[in-house]
Amino acid sequence: MATKNSLKTPKGTRDWVGGDLLLRNQIFETITTILTNHGGTPLDTPVFELRSILSEKYGEEARLIYHLADQGGEACSLRYDLTVPFARWLAARSDVQHVRRFQIAKVYRRDQPAVARGRLREFYQCDFDIAGVYDPMIPDAEILCVAAEVFEAFEVDVVVKVNHRKILDGFFEVAGVPRDRIRAVSSAVDKLDKAPWDEVREELLEKGIPDEVADRVGGYVRRSGGMREMLESFASDAELRANERVMEGVADMTLLASYLVAMGVADRVSFDLSLARGLDYYTGLIYEVAVTDSADNPTQVGSIAAGGRYDDLVGMYGRRPLPCVGISFGVDRVFTILNARRQKENKPDLGAHAQVYIMAFGGKEFDGLLLERMRVARQLWNAGIRAEFAAKVKPKSLQQFDAAEGVPVAVMLGQDELEAGQVLVKRLHVGDKNATTKDKGQLVSREDLVKEVRKLLESATLEQE
Amino acid sequence: MATKNSLKTPKGTRDWVGGDLLLRNQIFETITTILTNHGGTPLDTPVFELRSILSEKYGEEARLIYHLADQGGEACSLRYDLTVPFARWLAARSDVQHVRRFQIAKVYRRDQPAVARGRLREFYQCDFDIAGVYDPMIPDAEILCVAAEVFEAFEVDVVVKVNHRKILDGFFEVAGVPRDRIRAVSSAVDKLDKAPWDEVREELLEKGIPDEVADRVGGYVRRSGGMREMLESFASDAELRANERVMEGVADMTLLASYLVAMGVADRVSFDLSLARGLDYYTGLIYEVAVTDSADNPTQVGSIAAGGRYDDLVGMYGRRPLPCVGISFGVDRVFTILNARRQKENKPDLGAHAQVYIMAFGGKEFDGLLLERMRVARQLWNAGIRAEFAAKVKPKSLQQFDAAEGVPVAVMLGQDELEAGQVLVKRLHVGDKNATTKDKGQLVSREDLVKEVRKLLESATLEQE
Repeated sequence: MATKNSLKTPKGTRDWVGGDLLLRNQIFETITTILTNHGGTPLDTPVFELRSILSEKYGEEARLIYHLADQGGEACSLRYDLTVPFARWLAARSDVQHVRRFQIAKVYRRDQPAVARGRLREFYQCDFDIAGVYDPMIPDAEILCVAAEVFEAFEVDVVVKVNHRKILDGFFEVAGVPRDRIRAVSSAVDKLDKAPWDEVREELLEKGIPDEVADRVGGYVRRSGGMREMLESFASDAELRANERVMEGVADMTLLASYLVAMGVADRVSFDLSLARGLDYYTGLIYEVAVTDSADNPTQVGSIAAGGRYDDLVGMYGRRPLPCVGISFGVDRVFTILNARRQKENKPDLGAHAQVYIMAFGGKEFDGLLLERMRVARQLWNAGIRAEFAAKVKPKSLQQFDAAEGVPVAVMLGQDELEAGQVLVKRLHVGDKNATTKDKGQLVSREDLVKEVRKLLESATLEQE
Repeated sequence: MATKNSLKTPKGTRDWVGGDLLLRNQIFETITTILTNHGGTPLDTPVFELRSILSEKYGEEARLIYHLADQGGEACSLRYDLTVPFARWLAARSDVQHVRRFQIAKVYRRDQPAVARGRLREFYQCDFDIAGVYDPMIPDAEILCVAAEVFEAFEVDVVVKVNHRKILDGFFEVAGVPRDRIRAVSSAVDKLDKAPWDEVREELLEKGIPDEVADRVGGYVRRSGGMREMLESFASDAELRANERVMEGVADMTLLASYLVAMGVADRVSFDLSLARGLDYYTGLIYEVAVTDSADNPTQVGSIAAGGRYDDLVGMYGRRPLPCVGISFGVDRVFTILNARRQKENKPDLGAHAQVYIMAFGGKEFDGLLLERMRVARQLWNAGIRAEFAAKVKPKSLQQFDAAEGVPVAVMLGQDELEAGQVLVKRLHVGDKNATTKDKGQLVSREDLVKEVRKLLESATLEQE
C-alpha cells in the first residue's frame, strides 16, 4: 500500500514527458495520416462505459477489467479495449451502415505489468475498423495493406501471420474435438508461438481431450507453408473437403491471397495455422503482426498489432447485426522499438526548442530593459515564432547566453540602439562547427524585425540539413 | 440503473465523432502551437492517481472525485484536474527546477451534468503552467498574454478578470473577518458574478459573519475601475496601507500592470475585486477569462479559462517547495462556442474526404477489374493520396458515381485501356458550378498516374479557393 507521501504513479502506469511524449505523438501522427488516406474517420468514446456494455465480451479476461467504485448511480468500468466501445456505438447508431473509424486512446487492464516489455496497466491502443456489408475479403485485405503501410512508414520489418477461425474450427471438428470444447482447444493452440507442442498437447489432455484427438489437432495446426500450397493441400484432403466450415474458410483465404498480391503485400503475409487469438468474438480471418528483425525486438515483445473479423459482436447488443473487421496497433510497443532505435542512434532531442532568445545588455545604469524585451517577445509570438527571454528584471549577460544555448537566433537590445529605433539580430552559430567567422549581427528596425528573424531562421535550418 | 440492453454512454459522458471531433482536434492544435511558441513542453499523466495524491487538495469539491473500486492493491481515483497531477510530478522530479508544461487531457467530476452548457462529467482541460523561481509577476504576465493569444486565434472576444489573493485576504482582515473564516468568506464572495450582493451578504450572515463586517466586505469587493486607479486608491487608504498583505498584493499588481502594457494585452484585462476562485490552493494572482460577445455565449457559459498562482501546492507533498502559476482552458466550452458559430455559418464538413475514387467500367464481359483497382489504390496510397474504390467485385457504374460524390478526381479503368497500359484520370467538377464544359479526362500511363493525379488535385484545390 502507498504511504501518504508516496509520489509515484499507480502500479502499471507512467508519466510521459519530453522526448518520449513527442516521439509517441509522432507515432500517432504517422498512423493517423495513413488511416485517413484509407478513409478513416476518428471516434472518441468515454474512458469508462456502463458495466453491462463490457460484460460477457471478454471470456476469461473479464477479471482484468477495472471497475469504478459504487458512489451511487450507474455501475461503470474502465474500457478494456476499443473494439467493444466501437461495437456499442455502432449498435446504437442504426443510421450508420458503413464506416471506417479509427480511435487512438488509452485502455485499462489489471494485468501483471511488464514495464521493460512495454506492457502496462494503462496503455495506448490504436484501432482501425471497417464496418458494413461488402463483397467478401475486400476490406480484410485492405486492413492487412494498412498494417503493411504502417510498419513500412516506421521502417520496422514485420511478418503478418494470418489464419481463419472457420478453418481452425473445421480442423478441430474433423479431429474430433467436441463443439463445446472448441474455444478451450483454440486458446491452448494459440500458445504455440511461445510454447513447444509437447506443452500444448499436455494442456489439451488436461482439458479432457483424448490422446488421439490431440494428436490429430497437432497434425493440423503444425502445418505451415506458402498460402497457395496450404490451401491446395486442404482442398485435396477428402476429409477436410467434406467439412463445410473448412471449405468456407478456404474460399475466403483463396480470395484474400489474390487480393494481397494485387495490393503488393503478399510477400509480408504468412499463413500460420497455430494462430488462434484469445478473444471469443472473432468469426473469420484473424491475424497478428510480429517483428522479424531481432535488433528491433531485444525484449521479445509479442505481437505488435493484431485483429480479425468479428461479424457477430455488434449483433450481441440485440439491435442489429453489422459485420466488422479491424486491427489494433500496440502503439506502446511501437514506441519501445522506435525509442530503443533513437537511443542507439543517439538522435537529437525531439523537443521544439526556442527559435529566438531575446537578450538585453547595458552599462552601469542598465535597468534590464524588461518591458522592451516583453514588447519584442509579443511581436515575435504574434508572428508564430518561438521566442523566450530571461524572466528576470536585470539578467546578467552570462545567464542570458547560457539560457540561449541551442537557440539559433538572438535578438539583442541595448539602450542606445533602442533610442535609434533598432535592435540587433544575430545567428548564434549553434551546431555549426565549420563556422570560422562569428556573425556580428545586424541592426534592424522594429518593423523589419520579424522579416529578418525569419531569414536567419531559414538559413539556420538550411545549415542543419 | 441501466438495463442490460442500454446502449448509452454513462451519465455526463458522450462520444465524439466526425466534424465535432475534427473541430475539437483543430482547437487542440491551435492551442498547442501557441503554447509551444511560449516554450511549453507536453506532459501526459495516468487517468487515475493514488487516492492519497488527490486527498486534501480540493476542499469541499472532493466529494465529486470518482474512485476506482477496491479490487485489491492500491486505492486509486480518477484525476479531478490536471494541476494536482502536475504538482505530484514536480514534487517527485527534484531535478526539474524550471519547466513550462502543458497537458491536454480529460478530467472527471461527479457533478450534475449540464450538457447544453457544455458541462459534463468527463471533459477536456488544457493546462499551461510555469514552475520555478523567477522575478515577480513576469511568468504571471506571460500566462495572461498566452490567454489573450489563444482567444485572439479563435476570434473570441474575451475579458480577463484578475484579482490577487493577498489583496482579497487583506481586505477581509481589515474588514474584521476572523482568519479561520477567510476561505469561507472568499467562496461566498466568488458567487458575485452570478448572484446579487444581497444574496452573498445573506450567505455571509449565515456563515456567522457579523452585519457590520459583512458590509465592510461588500464595500471593498464591489469596487471596480481601471487597474491603476484602483491600485492608487488602495495605497491612499490609510487602513489598507497598514495591511502588509494588501500592500504585497498591490506591489504585485503594479508590476503586472506595467508588464501587461508592454505585452500589449492591458486593454483586455480588468481588475475585479469580487473574483475569488473556489479552490484553496491559490496564493497570489488569480484570473478568469469570460466571453464578452453575447452572440458567442447564448447559453451563458461561465468562465472559459481560469487559473492563478499557487506557490505552496508542490510543497504540500513534503519534498520541496516550488512556486507555480498556470491557466486551465475549458476547451469543451471553446468547442461549444466555435461549433455554434460553425453551424450558424453553415460551414462545410471538416472531414478529410477521399481525394480520388477508382472506378472500373466495361461491357458485357466486364469482370469488375477488382485486382486492377486494388493495384491502382496501393499505388496512390503509397504516394500519400486518399484513394477509395467500391468494395464490390462487380460494381455498377451508377453505384460508383454515387460513391464518388464529393470526390474531386476519378481514376477510371477499362479493359482496353489497361491492355494498352493506360488509365483515364479525370476531374469530377465537384463544387465547380461555373464549369460549362465537362472534363473528358486524359489517358495516362501507370508510371505517370501519381503525377497526373497530383496535378488535377492541385487544380481542384485552386478552384475551391
